[in-house]
Amino acid sequence: MTRQIGVTELALRDAHQSLMATRMAIEDMVDACADIDKAGFWSVECWGGATFDSCIRFLNEDPWERLRTFRKLMPNSRLQMLLRGQNLLGYRHYADDVVDHFVDKAAENGMDVFRVFDALNDPRNLERAMAAVHKTGKHAQGTICYTTSPLHTVDWYVQRARQLRDIGAQSLALKDMAALLKPAPAYDIVKAIKAEMPDMQINIHCHATTGVTLVSLMKAIEAGADVVDTAISSMSLGPGHNPTESLQEMLEGTDYAADLDKALLRKVRDHFATVKPKYAQFMSAFTVDTDIFDSQIPGGMISNMESQLKQQGAGDKLREVLAEVPNVRKASGYPPLVTPSSQIVGTQAVFNVLMGKYKVMTGEFADLMLGYYGECIGERNPEVVAIAQAQAKKDPITVRPADLIPPEWSKLVEDASKLDGFDGTDEDVLTYAMFPGVAPGFFSARDDGPTNVGKSAEQLKAEADAASGAANAVRGPIKYKVSFGGREHSVQVEMA
Amino acid sequence: MTRQIGVTELALRDAHQSLMATRMAIEDMVDACADIDKAGFWSVECWGGATFDSCIRFLNEDPWERLRTFRKLMPNSRLQMLLRGQNLLGYRHYADDVVDHFVDKAAENGMDVFRVFDALNDPRNLERAMAAVHKTGKHAQGTICYTTSPLHTVDWYVQRARQLRDIGAQSLALKDMAALLKPAPAYDIVKAIKAEMPDMQINIHCHATTGVTLVSLMKAIEAGADVVDTAISSMSLGPGHNPTESLQEMLEGTDYAADLDKALLRKVRDHFATVKPKYAQFMSAFTVDTDIFDSQIPGGMISNMESQLKQQGAGDKLREVLAEVPNVRKASGYPPLVTPSSQIVGTQAVFNVLMGKYKVMTGEFADLMLGYYGECIGERNPEVVAIAQAQAKKDPITVRPADLIPPEWSKLVEDASKLDGFDGTDEDVLTYAMFPGVAPGFFSARDDGPTNVGKSAEQLKAEADAASGAANAVRGPIKYKVSFGGREHSVQVEMA
Repeated sequence: MTRQIGVTELALRDAHQSLMATRMAIEDMVDACADIDKAGFWSVECWGGATFDSCIRFLNEDPWERLRTFRKLMPNSRLQMLLRGQNLLGYRHYADDVVDHFVDKAAENGMDVFRVFDALNDPRNLERAMAAVHKTGKHAQGTICYTTSPLHTVDWYVQRARQLRDIGAQSLALKDMAALLKPAPAYDIVKAIKAEMPDMQINIHCHATTGVTLVSLMKAIEAGADVVDTAISSMSLGPGHNPTESLQEMLEGTDYAADLDKALLRKVRDHFATVKPKYAQFMSAFTVDTDIFDSQIPGGMISNMESQLKQQGAGDKLREVLAEVPNVRKASGYPPLVTPSSQIVGTQAVFNVLMGKYKVMTGEFADLMLGYYGECIGERNPEVVAIAQAQAKKDPITVRPADLIPPEWSKLVEDASKLDGFDGTDEDVLTYAMFPGVAPGFFSARDDGPTNVGKSAEQLKAEADAASGAANAVRGPIKYKVSFGGREHSVQVEMA
Repeated sequence: MTRQIGVTELALRDAHQSLMATRMAIEDMVDACADIDKAGFWSVECWGGATFDSCIRFLNEDPWERLRTFRKLMPNSRLQMLLRGQNLLGYRHYADDVVDHFVDKAAENGMDVFRVFDALNDPRNLERAMAAVHKTGKHAQGTICYTTSPLHTVDWYVQRARQLRDIGAQSLALKDMAALLKPAPAYDIVKAIKAEMPDMQINIHCHATTGVTLVSLMKAIEAGADVVDTAISSMSLGPGHNPTESLQEMLEGTDYAADLDKALLRKVRDHFATVKPKYAQFMSAFTVDTDIFDSQIPGGMISNMESQLKQQGAGDKLREVLAEVPNVRKASGYPPLVTPSSQIVGTQAVFNVLMGKYKVMTGEFADLMLGYYGECIGERNPEVVAIAQAQAKKDPITVRPADLIPPEWSKLVEDASKLDGFDGTDEDVLTYAMFPGVAPGFFSARDDGPTNVGKSAEQLKAEADAASGAANAVRGPIKYKVSFGGREHSVQVEMA
């Protein structure tokens, strides 16, 4: 008996977010949509915080219109989004009424599957969003961010799965944003969750950064995983994801299969292979890096810390800072290192090395220690909590952070209404609520229509020609006709 | 009980052969050797046909001296080479006395493990080389080239393994040059061979081209494989191999482990990460491609056929040729498609499409049909054999091809002795024997010493600066003060 494995295609969201700084314009996606729609995916991930942000910040594109476009072009697909729990797509906790409005509007505009997560894995930060999804009748997927620490045991993952089921998760996602998930724990965690809840659908999301995670997907599938995330090969690997086609081929001859249409996959691949060079300026040459297994620190975080240190003339302290990160992480109760906790922990580690342990805390780190982001898995160091309390002049909290936020929808409507270009819709209110610093500029420029920050084939060719011509021109010898003073002269120029 | 898995590091041979057209100079390798030597590898692959060829063709470097350098710098390692059976490192069958001399000299200069293979998997083409290795007391590894066809069943692989054992293989290598080996057959083949010969060491060599083969290595290990081939991460992936560090991390927490020194691996990685940009001009942007699973045709072969077709003004016939390849392969008894059989089959498919089926045969294809390369797994089509016989005016043979070659060592010594710069050693005779067209030029230029065809850091920077400066200069407008004829003029130049 061959068990069918579902596949979530990431090309339209996480793949270009990971590979080309989320810069892909809708016009470079639309021609692939019909093929993606028919290829047989379990779902098509196409929306999330960074894509929303990038739309209004860089592409002068309405992210709600993008969603409606996908809905129209992929009528047979489950459209999937990544939702940062009580943060929605923004960088703060929102009041519950905003959460409700956001989920309603996303569902209304065409979203089917809401993958809801929280950077600290605090289920209280997922609760409201999950409940809101339920009310719309759409699919609420509860997410556990994968990380490692002495407390992140298999039992802990099972317990967290239980909690997510209890708040209404219709499926569970294990989200491995740092490519930390090795084959053995992938197998053990999925096996243990399935042993307790055999009917719960389990989705596995791994990046490819460390080079091991296609094997982890294989072992997760062997343990019972139902759906895995991949990206079409021309949009895969590096800091992105494992190739869709390789996943399908990998399963051939095993007890599992991914029923995708190979001819359509080829068309999708060829489409993005053509599009990709346009965004070369946003891509890094990164291929594979296993350092994170020892440092626990994502590559992007290390480069952030390096530049912080250099600005302080302390570029030689990187090793000390790297050694301090695990201490700060332990003191704060072992948060996963993912946006925003990675920046918060990393910056505090820099401060600790430069100025002495917790002599100066960032406001964000104090908030983390005082519970304003939610609960972590481990106990927070009481001494450090006390310092945070003294420095931030705030009391620690134990309630769900959003419980302290009064309803704010009416105020957001009022504020958004004053903006030039505001179109009066709830969608615009939500855009403003998510990115209040960026939305006003977008609203006022929206009528200009979307821009494409990639380079057209003509531009790329002209640039290549110019560079090659330029190189030749500099080498010479080249003869010029130079006219001045009414007379024409013949001049030969050659590199000395 | 954790089972230790051996690792063969490929950076010094197949990795740069696959990624940068075999162009790496010895001076870019020497600084990594001490770390490679101590990192804990089962063996270090460092020599083979293409590296030998490249040394004398492009690098003005004595390949025997390269071997002695490796031997000196890695005193604790098993040095490993790839030996094309009766072809040795060349492109024809040699007489047995040349095979004996070659193996003797390779062993004497420091080689430990001889991975002996044949493009057609004909054991008779391995016999003499295996026997020669035995006489030196070194390690004789029998190799099966992995391919797929209706006849390449698990039983066939076991039967071939048996034959290689019977001709003296101390270990077996499964060589997957096209990244065709999927996880399920990897498991099944290794399992079946181990069931029959549990003490036989099995080495697995996979390229990474299709993106699935790290999973195949995992399944091969689960089935009992003892040693796997990988390349340090900075020299991995694309048309190359799976990353060494990822292999090690992949095994953590499983019943298997690769006991490599991580700190040393990092040093080796960093070394090659620094070296790699020098060879950018030889590298392709290729990442991953699963098409070969359906076409059975390696990517390099397709581009060869395309250019052959274009030269004939038949660029539109590619699809027909691709469809003809399986027919030609079947008619010739299902040879693996690897050098030289891939070129032979591919070119004949082109001829068949352009001129009608077997109307014109290449000499090489006729030889293949008539048994001059050895036996294939399948029966050759008798009608096509008859055509080959008529066109080539040669009889088919059933004996071992080398049985028809009289001893030739004395003649090779005599011929080599006449060459300008010949140093009188058997090594030089062998260099001449392997590459008679290239060796004379190398001998006469050898005293100039090795060249490095990579670009130095200074060159790379100067080029980048020039390109950027040139681009600006060409764009303009730029005002120049131009002096000639004793007067100064003001001139403005701008791109037209």
